[in-house]
Amino acid sequence: MSKNKKKIYKPKPVSGFSEWLPEIRMIEQQWLDHIRRVFESYGFTSIETPSVEEIDVLLAKGETDKEIYTLTRLQADPDDDKEARLGLHFDQTVPLARYTAQHFNDLVFPFKRYQMQRVWRGERPQLGRSREFVQCDIDVINVDHLPLHFDAEMPAVIYEALDGLDIGRFQIRISNRKILLGLLEHLGIDDTIAVTRNVDKIEKLGRDEVHLILAKECGLSDEQIIQILDLATDSVLADIDPLNDQMREGLDELNFVMDQLSHLPDHAIKADLSIVRGLDYYTGTVYETVLLDHPEFTSSICSGGRYDDLAGSFINKRLPGVGISIGFTRLFEVMQNFGKVQGHRKGPADILMVLPSEDRRADASETARLLRRRGFKVEQYHAPQKIGKQLAYAEKKAIPFVWFPPFDDDGKHEVKDMNTGEQSETSPDNWTA
Amino acid sequence: MSKNKKKIYKPKPVSGFSEWLPEIRMIEQQWLDHIRRVFESYGFTSIETPSVEEIDVLLAKGETDKEIYTLTRLQADPDDDKEARLGLHFDQTVPLARYTAQHFNDLVFPFKRYQMQRVWRGERPQLGRSREFVQCDIDVINVDHLPLHFDAEMPAVIYEALDGLDIGRFQIRISNRKILLGLLEHLGIDDTIAVTRNVDKIEKLGRDEVHLILAKECGLSDEQIIQILDLATDSVLADIDPLNDQMREGLDELNFVMDQLSHLPDHAIKADLSIVRGLDYYTGTVYETVLLDHPEFTSSICSGGRYDDLAGSFINKRLPGVGISIGFTRLFEVMQNFGKVQGHRKGPADILMVLPSEDRRADASETARLLRRRGFKVEQYHAPQKIGKQLAYAEKKAIPFVWFPPFDDDGKHEVKDMNTGEQSETSPDNWTA
Repeated sequence: MSKNKKKIYKPKPVSGFSEWLPEIRMIEQQWLDHIRRVFESYGFTSIETPSVEEIDVLLAKGETDKEIYTLTRLQADPDDDKEARLGLHFDQTVPLARYTAQHFNDLVFPFKRYQMQRVWRGERPQLGRSREFVQCDIDVINVDHLPLHFDAEMPAVIYEALDGLDIGRFQIRISNRKILLGLLEHLGIDDTIAVTRNVDKIEKLGRDEVHLILAKECGLSDEQIIQILDLATDSVLADIDPLNDQMREGLDELNFVMDQLSHLPDHAIKADLSIVRGLDYYTGTVYETVLLDHPEFTSSICSGGRYDDLAGSFINKRLPGVGISIGFTRLFEVMQNFGKVQGHRKGPADILMVLPSEDRRADASETARLLRRRGFKVEQYHAPQKIGKQLAYAEKKAIPFVWFPPFDDDGKHEVKDMNTGEQSETSPDNWTA
Repeated sequence: MSKNKKKIYKPKPVSGFSEWLPEIRMIEQQWLDHIRRVFESYGFTSIETPSVEEIDVLLAKGETDKEIYTLTRLQADPDDDKEARLGLHFDQTVPLARYTAQHFNDLVFPFKRYQMQRVWRGERPQLGRSREFVQCDIDVINVDHLPLHFDAEMPAVIYEALDGLDIGRFQIRISNRKILLGLLEHLGIDDTIAVTRNVDKIEKLGRDEVHLILAKECGLSDEQIIQILDLATDSVLADIDPLNDQMREGLDELNFVMDQLSHLPDHAIKADLSIVRGLDYYTGTVYETVLLDHPEFTSSICSGGRYDDLAGSFINKRLPGVGISIGFTRLFEVMQNFGKVQGHRKGPADILMVLPSEDRRADASETARLLRRRGFKVEQYHAPQKIGKQLAYAEKKAIPFVWFPPFDDDGKHEVKDMNTGEQSETSPDNWTA
């Protein structure tokens, strides 16, 4: 046994917590940068909240089915109950509600914010479901009344955000819960939650199966069920007769939203009355988004809707809002799984600066600085090794250009395009890629 | 009592966990974007690791004095010991070591990575010390041998990164531990850790106080102490006589590093042999950075150094590295405290698009889209309210331009500069700010 033998703990990935190699991380950054750029281009402003909230805040709306991670200091005194009970946030909506209430007097309304942070849920991991993941959310909150303009803006923003990613065609499906709820009111059905949750399953289970469930579990008559399912599967809004004020309001709102989106490709936007979203707190417009070119992944990659009361648990104000959330990590992992995320560059450098000899180090550094000031990303080779070795390094990292500074005082600058193999004289003052 | 009376939980900030209003967050984003841009301009590539590691990984180098937060699912079965014991990472070095070991075969060396993530420490909060904070780290890792080039690159990168922030003048202080350790070897002093830790306090306690401590705690003779303190306070490297190989190596290395930084302003870079860094794992070059225009904040805002063995706990390879870390949140909070971070814009929009009337909505939207395609950030006003009200909204959010699309079919576009008050005819096809 060697006396230098150390105890080695061989690390392995922790299930549900992903990390990427640099070449994949670069693409993840491009995706996130693009989404951020689109959000900001519509005037949404960034906020970030702490990763933790008090447990009382996380549970302010009542128990949640999300698996919350709580924090304990490793060296905490178990008898010390003065420490705040903290948990990692499981979404960005509860923190938004708490933030809006807490900073109410310092915010300008309508408050248009985006938030792109990690959230945590201690769930059983599977493809598209991690224990730590990034969500990209936009919401607009107003006091008392929120104009319908924002219901229409959400899908416009999301279309641009998703369209810039390499995910193929997708479809944002839009409905308005008032239409179905209006029909249920008209039919005298009280247990709207059970009915809407089952209507939500039409795409997954098919119409016949949902018919049976509605009869068995909700005790509805065939006639009632047929009216409900006809409505939910009707895609021509103009054909629908509003049977009461609630239905009419829902149809008007949905028509307004669809009108504002007429500039988008037909396949990308669809009115779909079977979309009701399981969450009970949505009160009007609702959204879901599916991948059209990858129908084998049936879950929604981007969902949301309008709600009447964002922060009633935290402040005595009526704060209606509308929001939508891209399940970023889910989407990125699923596209990787489909082989659609392939990075080859191992770093951001545009140029590798060759070091011809130790004597020329100052000159190489100065050339690199000059090119950086001109906006190029320049990695400097670290030692005066053989040129072949320096070129091999550029190749291994897929750096597109290799720069040769003068090899002596009378020499010239040359640059080699690693894709074409061409090498030519140049100057750091005016070279362009 | 009203029947609508709800139970309200008034949220308050959780000590040690900060969040910013939108106008401050915008500046934080600008700072982070700038730092990232500089890191990438030198070819550093981004990685992110999960926020959590197994406790065994966090403690692989032995117990730490950092206060680790461990995770427990709120609904976990206390008798289930099959769940991985997880803790939030307290720095980015342990995760880097684990990552490099785990992905060793997929990385290109020298591995130049940057990492800008949140880390957590359950410490008592105070100004410049939070329980959740962002660090911006760069490190270069190589196998077996790491060229000195990278020791010199670190301060060059950091100078550019910090120089782009509004923090006044700062100074990066550089030393090489081999110089002092060489002298201690020459003097026959074995307990180098105790001595270097006390030398580190010269700036804080003064030379005389440290003299007393070294005599009392380390049992050194006056003659030994004078030699040590003379060296530590000597700022002219050329005056120092190397007394053995270790000292000579340290001086050569430090001279090389200082030579490579001669392009930087004199005040920004200083060889300072009193810098030894408390951490025992640094083996050569060490860095600290202080604010020159805010001497009342004495802590280092950016520190690091060279180490021989990054990941010996996780892989049977010799992986030397050099790295430096900006304590981002510390710096940002301290500068806020000095009144140096003042945001007035409440969002990113360059332009507010007026909505003249419901009839003109399609045209306003189309104009906004056109300007967005040209790279402008355009917020669309949401309802056809009085123009005065729309202007007041732009003013409240400090949006610099207000755009008036045609009020009728024969109308023209006009744009108002909110700073000068000037309003003029324009076209969305060729307007520039």
